[in-house]
Amino acid sequence: MSSMNIPQSSYPRIVIIGGGFGGIALAKKLSNKDAQVVLLDKHNYHNFQPLLYQVSTGGLEPDSIAYPIRKVLQGYPNFYFRLANVMEVDTDKKSIKTNIGEMTFDYLVIATGSETNYFGNKGIENNGMAMKTIPQALNLRSLILENFEQALLTDNLHEREALMNFVIVGGGPTGVELAGALAEIKKGILPKDYPDLDTRRAQINLIQSGDRILPAMSEQASEKAERFLEKLGVNVWKNIRVTDYDGKVVSTDCDTVFEAATLVWAAGVRAVGVKGLDAENLLARGNRLKVDQFNQVQGVEGVFAIGDVAQMETEAFPHGHPMMAQPAIQQGRNLGENLVRLIDDIPMKPFKYRDKGSMATVGRNKAVVDMPNIRFQGVFAWFVWMFVHLYFLIGFRNRVVVFINWVYNYIRFDREARLIIRPFKKQNRAERDTLKQE
Amino acid sequence: MSSMNIPQSSYPRIVIIGGGFGGIALAKKLSNKDAQVVLLDKHNYHNFQPLLYQVSTGGLEPDSIAYPIRKVLQGYPNFYFRLANVMEVDTDKKSIKTNIGEMTFDYLVIATGSETNYFGNKGIENNGMAMKTIPQALNLRSLILENFEQALLTDNLHEREALMNFVIVGGGPTGVELAGALAEIKKGILPKDYPDLDTRRAQINLIQSGDRILPAMSEQASEKAERFLEKLGVNVWKNIRVTDYDGKVVSTDCDTVFEAATLVWAAGVRAVGVKGLDAENLLARGNRLKVDQFNQVQGVEGVFAIGDVAQMETEAFPHGHPMMAQPAIQQGRNLGENLVRLIDDIPMKPFKYRDKGSMATVGRNKAVVDMPNIRFQGVFAWFVWMFVHLYFLIGFRNRVVVFINWVYNYIRFDREARLIIRPFKKQNRAERDTLKQE
Repeated sequence: MSSMNIPQSSYPRIVIIGGGFGGIALAKKLSNKDAQVVLLDKHNYHNFQPLLYQVSTGGLEPDSIAYPIRKVLQGYPNFYFRLANVMEVDTDKKSIKTNIGEMTFDYLVIATGSETNYFGNKGIENNGMAMKTIPQALNLRSLILENFEQALLTDNLHEREALMNFVIVGGGPTGVELAGALAEIKKGILPKDYPDLDTRRAQINLIQSGDRILPAMSEQASEKAERFLEKLGVNVWKNIRVTDYDGKVVSTDCDTVFEAATLVWAAGVRAVGVKGLDAENLLARGNRLKVDQFNQVQGVEGVFAIGDVAQMETEAFPHGHPMMAQPAIQQGRNLGENLVRLIDDIPMKPFKYRDKGSMATVGRNKAVVDMPNIRFQGVFAWFVWMFVHLYFLIGFRNRVVVFINWVYNYIRFDREARLIIRPFKKQNRAERDTLKQE
Repeated sequence: MSSMNIPQSSYPRIVIIGGGFGGIALAKKLSNKDAQVVLLDKHNYHNFQPLLYQVSTGGLEPDSIAYPIRKVLQGYPNFYFRLANVMEVDTDKKSIKTNIGEMTFDYLVIATGSETNYFGNKGIENNGMAMKTIPQALNLRSLILENFEQALLTDNLHEREALMNFVIVGGGPTGVELAGALAEIKKGILPKDYPDLDTRRAQINLIQSGDRILPAMSEQASEKAERFLEKLGVNVWKNIRVTDYDGKVVSTDCDTVFEAATLVWAAGVRAVGVKGLDAENLLARGNRLKVDQFNQVQGVEGVFAIGDVAQMETEAFPHGHPMMAQPAIQQGRNLGENLVRLIDDIPMKPFKYRDKGSMATVGRNKAVVDMPNIRFQGVFAWFVWMFVHLYFLIGFRNRVVVFINWVYNYIRFDREARLIIRPFKKQNRAERDTLKQE
């Protein structure tokens, strides 16, 4: 028995760090294979990140977009899950150090994903909100609701408007989807929930540093999404870069400033690194690990990286694949097959990315879809978006519950999970920082 | 405008403290009446306490047993909700002090409910878990799961068994339902989730100081519930009083001790008092406010109390009505009618409690029901229990989501919300204490 209580096995041991899209897809491919698989994650659940913005805006329960990792692995022989923070990797000794002990590996797969990148801006990091984890999404949900409760109490119009002013930085799918959802709440829910507050003064600002939103999609999708947002009453600001935020005033690189009690930072992610795999020659832009076409970390035998954390430079993607679910899932599956080949001493198959397209939703009946051969926007795109998200959600129960919530929200123009279960605002600085770390 | 930004009105102002079963029932009765109604609560949601144990055991999402208070009051004219902690009541000046300001009232209704009563035992309060609020239920959910994750890691059998040993103190419905749910998890989920752990060693102990569990129900129900629990493998201990808990060892008034990492205290509640209404002559046992047959606090004109916080002594209930949902709902409705009469100068109607019976569920197909004229147990009782709980749950969406979860859990012998969203155990003492206060 090692110190993490994983029995020794005659099979080679594959350790996977991270139970996101990549790690889970890989683990599934390794079931019933001649390998001992150990999956480590600091949470005991897989989190469906594309729907986090619906948790923040009260449209879905957090529990319906999370799935217990142990349940995914149920019934797999030779599988071990451990709730652990990985602290360091020693690639020479082929061992890892975690908060619950050390263990050796034959093959190691880094699937740690990405986290919010503030690019060193402490003001934004300390005073802004991120939305990459379920606790963060819940913090944002609490803060939005707490702001309106507080706005009711002040006679100072200036202060009231700042409390109802939302600044979302970053015009990618996360920013667009969050801005659209907030605009729908402003229109459909706030006037009924706060009849004694002039909620028409609420402002939703989406700020994009480039000259179009959804820059990773087609120009057609960008234009349409912008029109959808404007229709919903979102102020879209382009070619403006947010430079700082002190909790009250959002500064930019031009004359425009925003007085806002809420800033959501969705303008950058970086790979979650692992100590021991952080030599400069291993890393690419955004902290990603350079990998070859088999997802092996360049020059490090037996160590692989998949998903957001891996940068595989190809002709089509000179800076690596997009940091989204699809490349992670496909790399996880391919690596699963390759690890079996490696164990059986058969040559591995290089990774080939099949672009299935990308999509973003702005609001009810409003989505944009870019598929490899066709682009479309509007009601049908919205149905496609919903179908695809239900399909990729893990777990039958989750799918049913999410579907029921969507039907209900659609018919009733409502989002009922507007609950402040753990207040964010009333916490002191240190407690807030703890909440934000989760 | 008062300092809480409630406009002055020509109608008398009724302030309700607490949005539980009583407060909500009262508020509903006062819609469209000639009164300005202000509802205060420290949460922005109503919480369906009878199902909290299912949140703790991963059977339901917290959001599906909570309901936004603002949504209940939507469309009511002259209604105001404020998220506030009430700090003090001045019955002479007819004013209340809260954390967000002061306000006056014409009529005041205390509907603050009850909280866990540790009877001054600091060891149990500091080291035990309570289950009266949603955050507390989530803390317990986290702790249960964290215990099993930790049990995996130790080779010390003694320590491992303590981590898998659950002591539930109090044989009322809460204790019985929680013990039953844990026993089902032990049987149906743990062996699959933790194949590398000998989960048969997990122990669920239910400790009751009296000589039967469910003492408020019929002897027939008590006996049957105890048999159900034994069938599920719960150790039922009667005539034992827990005297202390240091986080490791549960001491009792006899030779029996338990080494357990988890103690859930469900052995007492007391009314949540309000400063300014705490004179000795006003209070009965358990901190409850003595009220007359119109729910008026004895001797205090214009101030009322309903539900758990009110003690109305009648022939049938010399120590007040049971601290459950039904008396609260019925008192809220009756008081709503009486307040209208009072405003219209018509004599009030004394409260008459209609006992609709009581029930408790132990597990799948296992419940006990005492109705005024009939008692039954088993499968049919279990269906009645589910139907009644769905009926009293507020909100159509909540009912559908809870129903779907129950169907799924029934068919699959599963409970999928076993997620550690906010770890409880890894917090330090101060943070834990904060979490426990919520």
